[in-house]
Amino acid sequence: MSEPAVDVNEKGDSKKAQKKEAKKAEKAAKRAEHRANTDNAQENVNEEDVSQGKYGTLPLIRSDTNAVKRDFTYIKTLNKDLAGKVLWVRARLHTVRARGKQSFIVLRQHEYTVQAILNVSETVSKAMVKFSSNITKESIVDVEAQLAKVEAGVAGCTQQDVELVVSQIWVVSASAPQLPLQIEDASRPEKADDAEGLNIRVNQDTRLDNRVLDLRTPANQAIFRLEAGVCRLFRDTLTERGFTEIHTPKIISAASEGGANVFTVSYFKGSAYLAQSPQLYKQMAIAADFEKVFTVGAVFRAEDSNTHRHLTEFVGLDLEMAFKYHYHEVMLTIGDMFTAIFRGLRDQFAREIAIVGQQFAVEPFTFLDPPLVLSYDDGRAMLAAAGVEVGPEDDLSTPAEKLLGRLVKAKFDTDFYMLDKYPLAVRPFYTMPDPNDPKKSNSYDMFMRGEEILSGAQRIHDPELLSERAKHHGIDLQKIASYIDAFKYGCPPHAGGGIGMERVVMLYLGLDNIRKTSMFPRDPKRITP
Amino acid sequence: MSEPAVDVNEKGDSKKAQKKEAKKAEKAAKRAEHRANTDNAQENVNEEDVSQGKYGTLPLIRSDTNAVKRDFTYIKTLNKDLAGKVLWVRARLHTVRARGKQSFIVLRQHEYTVQAILNVSETVSKAMVKFSSNITKESIVDVEAQLAKVEAGVAGCTQQDVELVVSQIWVVSASAPQLPLQIEDASRPEKADDAEGLNIRVNQDTRLDNRVLDLRTPANQAIFRLEAGVCRLFRDTLTERGFTEIHTPKIISAASEGGANVFTVSYFKGSAYLAQSPQLYKQMAIAADFEKVFTVGAVFRAEDSNTHRHLTEFVGLDLEMAFKYHYHEVMLTIGDMFTAIFRGLRDQFAREIAIVGQQFAVEPFTFLDPPLVLSYDDGRAMLAAAGVEVGPEDDLSTPAEKLLGRLVKAKFDTDFYMLDKYPLAVRPFYTMPDPNDPKKSNSYDMFMRGEEILSGAQRIHDPELLSERAKHHGIDLQKIASYIDAFKYGCPPHAGGGIGMERVVMLYLGLDNIRKTSMFPRDPKRITP
Repeated sequence: MSEPAVDVNEKGDSKKAQKKEAKKAEKAAKRAEHRANTDNAQENVNEEDVSQGKYGTLPLIRSDTNAVKRDFTYIKTLNKDLAGKVLWVRARLHTVRARGKQSFIVLRQHEYTVQAILNVSETVSKAMVKFSSNITKESIVDVEAQLAKVEAGVAGCTQQDVELVVSQIWVVSASAPQLPLQIEDASRPEKADDAEGLNIRVNQDTRLDNRVLDLRTPANQAIFRLEAGVCRLFRDTLTERGFTEIHTPKIISAASEGGANVFTVSYFKGSAYLAQSPQLYKQMAIAADFEKVFTVGAVFRAEDSNTHRHLTEFVGLDLEMAFKYHYHEVMLTIGDMFTAIFRGLRDQFAREIAIVGQQFAVEPFTFLDPPLVLSYDDGRAMLAAAGVEVGPEDDLSTPAEKLLGRLVKAKFDTDFYMLDKYPLAVRPFYTMPDPNDPKKSNSYDMFMRGEEILSGAQRIHDPELLSERAKHHGIDLQKIASYIDAFKYGCPPHAGGGIGMERVVMLYLGLDNIRKTSMFPRDPKRITP
Repeated sequence: MSEPAVDVNEKGDSKKAQKKEAKKAEKAAKRAEHRANTDNAQENVNEEDVSQGKYGTLPLIRSDTNAVKRDFTYIKTLNKDLAGKVLWVRARLHTVRARGKQSFIVLRQHEYTVQAILNVSETVSKAMVKFSSNITKESIVDVEAQLAKVEAGVAGCTQQDVELVVSQIWVVSASAPQLPLQIEDASRPEKADDAEGLNIRVNQDTRLDNRVLDLRTPANQAIFRLEAGVCRLFRDTLTERGFTEIHTPKIISAASEGGANVFTVSYFKGSAYLAQSPQLYKQMAIAADFEKVFTVGAVFRAEDSNTHRHLTEFVGLDLEMAFKYHYHEVMLTIGDMFTAIFRGLRDQFAREIAIVGQQFAVEPFTFLDPPLVLSYDDGRAMLAAAGVEVGPEDDLSTPAEKLLGRLVKAKFDTDFYMLDKYPLAVRPFYTMPDPNDPKKSNSYDMFMRGEEILSGAQRIHDPELLSERAKHHGIDLQKIASYIDAFKYGCPPHAGGGIGMERVVMLYLGLDNIRKTSMFPRDPKRITP
């Protein structure tokens, strides 16, 4: 293998540089390169170094035209069938320890780890072993190595039947020596019954303050790959069923739902608001004949709630659908969509679920196909039988929801169900009243492990009834004129719902805090990083 | 077929209603129902009406438990093979005209239209024909009809070889009689050479003020279905290539790129900003080992630009990717992704493209596979040969970009190309300087029909060089501390880019204004509807 390219033409070129700016940039880059060469040189004081040119710190990779071309192998593909092969791996140095004439490195790539060893030998110098044992944790290294079978099994690595016998090692990007958190600590099992239960863990704020490090843990790698799967399954399932994806504005002129909990934006010489949901816009898309629509996007809530399940900004998975005669056409479509998502996660993300399970106590998520539908009154009756009375026109409290989730799980063995026909009094003004019972409404919530993850309903598509209901709720009709007008020119009956993406991932995996499923969470006290 | 359900139990139930709120809702709903029955009754003054129960206005569809169940047929599936069949269609009444004992209705569903006729006969009364001819345009109707072959061809309908002979017609949702714009006017061809060129059109503001109507035109139905296709192709292509979808916060603590053109948000007792791009967050995802990421989401620019191609809020299609030695690994991945999108649009959206072409002068979009890459200096040379001098460290002006687009199209027959190696001086602080030429940078723009739709580069992944460059650009290092810190703990070299979704759709179709490809556009003067 050839040596990493070092650009020898640069000095000549920099002399020609005319602009101050360009010069400065050049200087900083040179300094980085100089550092690199110095590091290397220090190791090379011994002129007899048999490993010269086989290790060191690479110059900053700046896409040099003379850059080498090289195939790299993913750690996850390493297994004993490849034993004997010489290959290159670019990975993080997870840990390193020196022992006599050897250094033992654990290389990490996403959720995978493999052991790499350096032995002083005819081709590997003492200086090279020493260099490798001084590489800071979390640095990115390029390693050339021969893959060797290991009979005993490598403890603590995902690749247990092989190790890498290193012939070259180059630092691509060095980490600062002091880490604000250790990946091992951040990865440590948090299960109550774990033997390591008393060891150091990393608290939530430290994790979030240093999110770039925290996200490198196997569990976090798995959580966010699974989260991407939730979005993909949501969209693919709906696209298959004839839905069209739309995009709705986040900057809106009026706080639609009464004006509470809304963020204000300064908008040129005036002001505007951040949308609390795409509700009105997806309904307009229905009135505009798109028939079935969904949208995935940021949703903002200026609620000063510091709980395990509230964020001020989250990702809404929203859908809306015209129906013919009964909103259950929509409710059951949503239920089937959830079944498709749960099935997809179970079948396509088993590995990710298992990896999360190594750190957190994950109970497998159970669901029925078709999903369970309970009426609100059925739910109240189950709660009453358990000693919790909920009035016929009252909403469920969060503890009541959780209890009902446990009762449903015990009786029906499902972590997902739909609760239909909420009291009219506890739903937004645009909810269609039940035609058969004036106290009820054509609305539903859906739950995962006893927590609400979707709220939805048939919407009022008649402008007169809508105005009436808005007035009743004390909403200034002028402020929602364009919303009401959307229904003046003919609109099919329709229903829909909004889902909190982060909640779905949190509850599917059985995690205890929504900050674990938002890559860069926002709450009343946090807007960094 | 049975009559539409009318709920006869409601009066009894409403007597039992106790809450004021519920009563009010009921009353409004009753009023809507009363209106419906009255409309019907007025038509039925003639006791001899042979069509009684076959037409009228349905009560408001509120998901009655006794609702009929009925299969509906989509207009797009109607063809002469189905002739003779009796079927139900729910569609908009596009136009209606009465002529003697007949009424001719055009029914519209998305981009499809079909003629429906009512003839006075033994089963169709004069009153029914009269009722049908008085239904307001844009109302939604349920029609029962027998499908009949038409030999001559139905002018002005998409379904030319069939028509519907109506046996029942019910208004599901009535439109107000006065429309702020006519769908025919809003759908009229806008091509310079069109025979209808001098007829009434609808101006942009009227369209946007009444977007729910405007979006019903065949061209708009097609544009936004194609736009959904762009997003799907973007995501699917990248997912196939191992990218992970991420979500980045829109509310941020510091205006990252110098503080200009940023919207301020009041955030509880403090203030925050709306992100101008997911730049810093997708880079953090790279530093956090996600390797290849993309994100689709709202992007905000507080620029007071009132042009055909600027919005204050648009949808960003962003991606970022770690590479091994040269940023061209990324640039070419992006180029291939565009080829996949263009191929997908051409193959999967031919009908939509044709429909847009009926209203607007659409030139087919040409592209090469693999795509054309020009160096910035090549581009400058082509411009110089055409008489336009651009300095080696100057940016391209918009007119120069457009001219270059025409020159490239003439020479290479492609509407898409990539321009590589921009001057360092015109790129953001985090752009990697070219190692071989200090005046240049490892950056690229991509163009469709001569307009920029992607800007991208290798980013500086070394914290020291990054700080140096930020200082040079006059950026307060404290404000971007968490960004710079992201690279302190090892980061692979990486590059990426950001794409304006609405621009891609506008330029792919050759439309003249970005407001045509944003469902609810936001500009300095518009934040409604």
